[in-house]
Formats: sequence, C-alpha cells, structure tokens
Amino acid sequence: MSVRDLALSAKAASGKLAITSAKTRNDALVAMADALITATPKILQANAQDVRLAKERGEKDSFIDRLTLDQKRVEGMANGMRKVSLLPDPIGKSDAVFVRPNGLRIEKRRVPLGVIGIIYEARPNVTADAIALCIKSGNACVLRGGSEALLSNAAVCDALNEAAIQNGIPDGAIGLLRDTDRAAANEMMKLNGLIDVLIPRGGHGLIQSVMQQATVPVIETGVGVCHVYIDESADLAMATGIIENAKCSRPSVCNAAETLLVHASVATKCLPEIAKRLAARGVELRCDERSKSLMPGSIDATQEDWSTEYNDLILSIKVVDSLEEAISHIETYGTHHSDAIVTECYRTAERFLNEVNSAAVYVNASTRFTDGEEFGFGAEIGISTQKLHARGPMGLDELTTVKYAIRGEGQIR
Amino acid sequence: MSVRDLALSAKAASGKLAITSAKTRNDALVAMADALITATPKILQANAQDVRLAKERGEKDSFIDRLTLDQKRVEGMANGMRKVSLLPDPIGKSDAVFVRPNGLRIEKRRVPLGVIGIIYEARPNVTADAIALCIKSGNACVLRGGSEALLSNAAVCDALNEAAIQNGIPDGAIGLLRDTDRAAANEMMKLNGLIDVLIPRGGHGLIQSVMQQATVPVIETGVGVCHVYIDESADLAMATGIIENAKCSRPSVCNAAETLLVHASVATKCLPEIAKRLAARGVELRCDERSKSLMPGSIDATQEDWSTEYNDLILSIKVVDSLEEAISHIETYGTHHSDAIVTECYRTAERFLNEVNSAAVYVNASTRFTDGEEFGFGAEIGISTQKLHARGPMGLDELTTVKYAIRGEGQIR
Repeated sequence: MSVRDLALSAKAASGKLAITSAKTRNDALVAMADALITATPKILQANAQDVRLAKERGEKDSFIDRLTLDQKRVEGMANGMRKVSLLPDPIGKSDAVFVRPNGLRIEKRRVPLGVIGIIYEARPNVTADAIALCIKSGNACVLRGGSEALLSNAAVCDALNEAAIQNGIPDGAIGLLRDTDRAAANEMMKLNGLIDVLIPRGGHGLIQSVMQQATVPVIETGVGVCHVYIDESADLAMATGIIENAKCSRPSVCNAAETLLVHASVATKCLPEIAKRLAARGVELRCDERSKSLMPGSIDATQEDWSTEYNDLILSIKVVDSLEEAISHIETYGTHHSDAIVTECYRTAERFLNEVNSAAVYVNASTRFTDGEEFGFGAEIGISTQKLHARGPMGLDELTTVKYAIRGEGQIR
Repeated sequence: MSVRDLALSAKAASGKLAITSAKTRNDALVAMADALITATPKILQANAQDVRLAKERGEKDSFIDRLTLDQKRVEGMANGMRKVSLLPDPIGKSDAVFVRPNGLRIEKRRVPLGVIGIIYEARPNVTADAIALCIKSGNACVLRGGSEALLSNAAVCDALNEAAIQNGIPDGAIGLLRDTDRAAANEMMKLNGLIDVLIPRGGHGLIQSVMQQATVPVIETGVGVCHVYIDESADLAMATGIIENAKCSRPSVCNAAETLLVHASVATKCLPEIAKRLAARGVELRCDERSKSLMPGSIDATQEDWSTEYNDLILSIKVVDSLEEAISHIETYGTHHSDAIVTECYRTAERFLNEVNSAAVYVNASTRFTDGEEFGFGAEIGISTQKLHARGPMGLDELTTVKYAIRGEGQIR
C-alpha cells in the first residue's frame, strides 16, 4: 500500500477510533500483547533474516544488538503493552469547564490528535511500543521503520494488527509502511491534512532531515548536551555522586551529562576526587586550563567539546567564577535538555531553576531522571527538545489535543 | 537590520525578558500605551503616506479601510494594550507539582516560548496587538508586517519600543523587520534555534506559504468552513436565530457559518422562514436539490460550494436524512473549525459533541462565539486550526510552554 493510501486509511479509522471506549482500547492492548507472544516464532524467524542480511552488509555489533530480538525481548514488548493498558485513559477528560456571562458552558476536552506518523530507525521494539501508545491514546498511526528491520517490523505489526481488529480497533488504524524507499518517507512528511503530527525517533541525522523536509507539524526529540554545575556551597560528596551517575550510569542516552562546571572556590577540593572516581569508571576527561592540573590523566578540551554530545564515556570540565558564568555557559553551549546544579544555597538554587532555560532543570539530582518512566508518566514516546506542544518527556497526555465542547440555550452574538 | 540580526537580538533579550516580574511587564505595557497616544501625530503622518501610496497603486477600498488609521483607531490600540496589562500573568504558575517515590519534587512550570515570529498582512493595529501579547507573556518577538503598511508599522513599533526599553523591557525584545523583501521573510521562516514559533496572521495564501516553507514550528490559523445543523428535534425559532446570526453578524470572519444542514423531517417547516429572514439580510442561497424548492430565490449549489469559505453573504444549504449524514458531511467538507447543532434531544446533542472533530463544537449556540474574547481569554493571538500545541482560540496561555523545575536531595538513578 502506498504511504498516501496508508494515511487515508488511518484517517478514516481515526474518527472511529477516537470514540471507542477506554475499555475497548485497553482490552485490545491485552489481546495484542497475547498475540505478540503467540507470534513469537514467526517474529523471531523474520528477525533472524533481518539480522542475517545486516551481518552480510557488515553492520557494526552495536547495530546488530539493537536489531536482534529474542524470546525475552518479545516478552518485554508484550509486557510493555500490558503496562500501557493499565495506565489512566488520557482521552475524554476535561482540562477545564467554565461558564461565560451569557450562560455558554465551555468545556476544554482532551481528544486524540488523530493520525500520528512515526519515523524511526532499526529497533523493532519501537514498533510495538509506538503502536501501544497510539492505540491507548485513541490515535491512528502510520509507522515508517528502518529498512534494516522491515521483516521484523512487519511480523510484529501483522500480529498486533490482526488482534487489534478482532478486538474492536477499526481496520486501518495501524499502518506500517512497507515501501522503505526514501521517496515514500519524503511523501509521508508532506501529507498535511492526513497526518496530524510527525514524531521522528532516532539519531540526529534522521531528526534533522524530518525537521527540514516536513510540512506536517513535527515534534523534535533528541540531542542533549547536559550539564552538572557544582556551586561553591555544594555538598561535595553529593556532587561527586551526582556527576558520576549523570555521566556513567548510561552514557549513550540524551539525559547523560556531557559537561561538568565547577565553581573556582571548590575546584581544588573536589576535582581530584571526581577524577579518581571517573577514571575508575573509564571516563576520558577533557579539561579547560584551570581544571586540567587538578585532574590527573586528563587532556585539553577544545572549543568544540563544549557543544558536543559525546554519548560516550567522555566528560568535558570547566572551572567558572560565578553562578552567572555557569548559567551563561549552559545557555551558550547547551541544548536546553537537562541541566543540574549541586548547591546548599537557597537563593542560588532558585536562581538556577528560574534562569536556566531547559526542559528539565535540577537542584541536587542527576540529569538522568529526565525520562517518562522516572517522571511517573508510565510510558514515553520521546523527549521533546522543542517548545511547541510538548517539552521534556512526552507521555500519553502529550499524544492528545483539545476540543471545546460548548453547550448553549440559543445564544447568539 | 537583517532578519537574522533581529532574531539574534530577540533571542539575547528573551532570556532577560523571561525573568522580568509581571509588574515590570504590566507597567511597561501601560507606559507603551501612553507612548502610542503621544506619538499619534507621527503615526498618523506615516500612515497617511502608506495610504497615499496604496491609493496610487489602485488598491481596493476594503484594503484601504484596513490600512487606514485615525485618532480613534490609535486610541483603540492603546486601550487594547492597557487591557492586556490587566490580564492575569500567564508566566511562572505551575500546571502541576508531584513528588516521586524517590522524593524528587517535579514542578511543571509555565514559561515563555522565547522568541515568537509573526508574519502578517496590511493591518497596522496587528503590530501593537502582537507586541502587547508577546511582552505580556514574556516573549520577545520578530514582526514582519506587509510592505504596504511599513511606514505605519515602523512608527507604531518605534513609539512602543522606546517606551518599553525605558520601562525595563530588554533592548531587542521587540523587533520589526523593515526589509519587506520576500527573501527576508523566507529566511525568517528557517531561523531554527533563534525563532521558537512562527504565527502567520492573514489570508489563506499567506498561511499556506508559511506552512510550506517554514522549518521553524508554525501555528496554523485561519480557514473556517463552519456548519449549522438543524436536527429533527430542533426548536425551529432558535434554529432560525442561530443560522441568521452565524451567517450575517459578520460574514467576513472565519467563525461565520458557510453551510446549513437541515434534517429532512423539518426542512419544509423551517426552510421557507429561514429563506425569508436571510433574504432580508441580503444573503445569497445556494441549495441542493431537496432544499431548493423550499427556498424561494435560491440558486443551485455546485460540488465546490460544500468546501468553500465564502467570507461573504452567501450560504449553502443541504437537506440530510440523519445525524450520521450531517456529521459525515461536516467531516468530509468542513475545516474542523466551528460547527453547531440545534437540537432538543440529549442523545443527539452528546453524539454531535463527541463525534464532530472540530476545534469548537456547539449545541444550541452560534458558531460566532469561537473567539478569544468570547471565550473569556481577554485577548486573542489567532484561532489555531491545527491540533499541535494549541487548538481553537489562542490566548496568553497558548504563548507559553513548560519547563520542569526539579528539587532533589542528591538523588541518583
């Protein structure tokens, strides 16, 4: 099916899907999770072929790892769907009801976005995850996964779709683009009127390409150049724990710290210990002039380091003379994703929260908490780095829009 | 100044503007309103020149009317600014504060979007209006008005900017693009990282052009093909009043009705009277086959009529056999802006509110109420016809985004 036909089917289905009950959608999700388990042999067979082809092409081990499914990973996908089925329904509730002087009762009601387009790379678990979040939130979806995972994605999608249709989800609500030509993806990005929002999930290149080409509204996710700033009043043991966690607990993700800023008055006291701790975790340290002598084994940072998302066990370090200098550095080189201060000073903490213009700003906690699960949203479709519609971790509520339902008694203007 | 330099200045100013107090912003707005009054002679002089040039080019009377300022209109602009200064502050309040099991206190706090770009056509009052709403909501702005109003816009902007800077608004927060070349506007639409959101205000052509070309996130405003549906259970006197009001009270605006749908069982009873009432208001009636014989003086509707926004004293009329047919017509030909049903039946009313997928859905009221003032928002930056970020009338709250301010005690993950 062409991408246009997929989107037309999705749009036709979305009207019906939007008015299904939460029970219908939740029961369908449980049935879909069961169907995924039942289809495990088929899915693993398809996946084995994707993996074989990827190995023949000479893909890197990390790529093969992300692509590969096994029984446990399929179970993980199914469990994810069951968990989504248990979350509160984001649809139909009202943000507000107000009555105007003329008696009109205006209700601001949460409704699905309609049709969500998701363009993603070679992780087949995203297929199940995205479908679960869309169905839960009453949205139809058009998925375009990486060509490297097409057979796996198709097997997952077929199993889910069949169970969905048998359980009251309108046919057409779940669409997977099987034409992995770039032209089809490009056409998808311009289907205004059919697709309500596009969410790219993947690397910087993918996201930028969608941002540049799409005429459909896009939610940008992604890049995080996150900072930890150790203030002069910081509890230095706490600071050491936070930077170690922010850098080392999972360096490949967007909420990991890339730069450590340290107030000059505590640099001598804390940097040697931090260097020791990070060296033990295998972190490469790239230092400005003032921090270098305090961190044995470090190398010189270049100008480029300050704006680099390493996604790796590398940390840049800079000594600053004031809160203002720290904030100014963060505003200049950061990506407004997640930034943390370690401080015991009330006034400094409040100023940092106010003045650092990032999606998530922390006092005395690791940047690694910027995450839908950690925020208690129960699920996450991505972390928005734009300001429109959603900012920070996006849960089910971010997959909804509003409509005004207005009750009158003949009012005219 | 080039559009890039204007945007750079706006971005630099936006960080400072975002942390000004509500009092600073409100006092500045009052001073700016006073400055507008003081500058009236200069503004009228500049405007007279715009008007003279427009007349020399042979512009239409309606265009000249929208372009022309007089003392009363300048006073109207100043009063609008004073009114905005009195509205509740949309900045700094929290949508929610929640505590996670690990003790993290997560606050979802309203903050300005940052830099708002507004591209609009030849109505100089939009300049003052847009500046007021942006300053009130803590946003810097880059304005690009129509070339036909450049002298007027510049005079308005200069007066406001001077007073703003004298009253604590950072220099650069208010930018007017004086290069009215299309190339500069095109560049503006691609200033990702400098401009956070673009709002086009004007006709369909302008909005579509911005939607197609912009890589900066856009809020689409505009086209309304709005319907009134008279159900079989309707109070017909109420229905007649509503369609008359929805069509005639201001036919040029997007929330005016363009199509009347009537249930077959009441068509004979109500259409002749409606025809009489609308004829007296000078409305041209374009009817489907079944309604035509009931509406003296009407002409045949063509297929095109069902999807046309007349913005004029023209109404298309169609007889339908059921609620389903009415909803299906609205979903097929409408623009999901504002649609109304007139009914006395509870179940029909609730189904219409649920199933019609428009920004504003009315029971027993005129579509003309879709408006920021009428909704009680106090001000309106436009009516969003997209689903992302804002839908329906946009007030000050829609000019904000969120950030998560998170307070911890050393939490790591």
